Amino acid sequence: MPYCLYFRARGGHLQANRPQSPNPEFLRRAIALATENVRAGKGGPFAAVVVREGRIVGEGANSVTSANDPTAHAEVNAIRNACRALGTFTLAGCELYTSCEPCPMCLAASYWARLDAIFFGCSAADAARAGFDDAFLYEELRRDHAARTLPTTQMLREEAQASFDAWIASKNKIEY
Amino acid sequence: MPYCLYFRARGGHLQANRPQSPNPEFLRRAIALATENVRAGKGGPFAAVVVREGRIVGEGANSVTSANDPTAHAEVNAIRNACRALGTFTLAGCELYTSCEPCPMCLAASYWARLDAIFFGCSAADAARAGFDDAFLYEELRRDHAARTLPTTQMLREEAQASFDAWIASKNKIEY
Repeated sequence: MPYCLYFRARGGHLQANRPQSPNPEFLRRAIALATENVRAGKGGPFAAVVVREGRIVGEGANSVTSANDPTAHAEVNAIRNACRALGTFTLAGCELYTSCEPCPMCLAASYWARLDAIFFGCSAADAARAGFDDAFLYEELRRDHAARTLPTTQMLREEAQASFDAWIASKNKIEY
Repeated sequence: MPYCLYFRARGGHLQANRPQSPNPEFLRRAIALATENVRAGKGGPFAAVVVREGRIVGEGANSVTSANDPTAHAEVNAIRNACRALGTFTLAGCELYTSCEPCPMCLAASYWARLDAIFFGCSAADAARAGFDDAFLYEELRRDHAARTLPTTQMLREEAQASFDAWIASKNKIEY
């Protein structure tokens, strides 16, 4: 279900569903995992946990360099692990506790996962001071294609529409 | 290396490195994979290929619903597969051809992967018409925390700084 419809189905206001008292122990767990990740040499100083009904259902630490995967950020890993544990592609009803504000990749992943709320420790500006691109990426994504440093060009739009036509016509599709 | 330094090291203008003639056959390959993905019932109508020096080094189609992974978008899968094939966490020197404009998650992943260029078929608005959230997510990411539908709250910033302190002090870290 598209997020806008999902959001409406949830009463039009996810903020109202925010836990009254987030549990700082879950964020402390993420921070401890992030620091341990640096000491173990597995990747950047980031970790996250996914919580459902007061219980951790997935954890993840940054493993970009050890897993040779530029998408293996803490939040993406935690979301993937939680979904694997729960056998689902949606984390509605779950909260994300992450040692640092999610980068745009991880924030968008949180929407796609239908997470209820995000609690974070350091900010994107703190990450920038430690040498990471999070704040820069937020600036880039606000720009139009032509103004971005990564060149992005549209081609063959008419031909590409065929894939959407197949989707719209499909009778057995699973929406997400 | 942070993107801003990487960008400077590349001469301050990735646009200058853009291939003079993108090869439409690579985009046609992505479109065919996207349509096949719908027919196979594996996920949404999206696929992508990563190309290096005129050769495909990684392919990916959306597998959100079949893999129970909300991050398993076409571009993320193609980037992960290309990195696995090349044994690296950076795709500098590679281009991404994708059947649809990357969503914010996939665009940010493209930056983290250091891709040289992106060529896409359908736009985020086309995706929105087919029931996907891409355009909505671009709007959300432009907003401040407080104005987003997904509640995002900062906590324990001082404690969280410990992970960055460990990173800055680490002598054997691999930057990315």
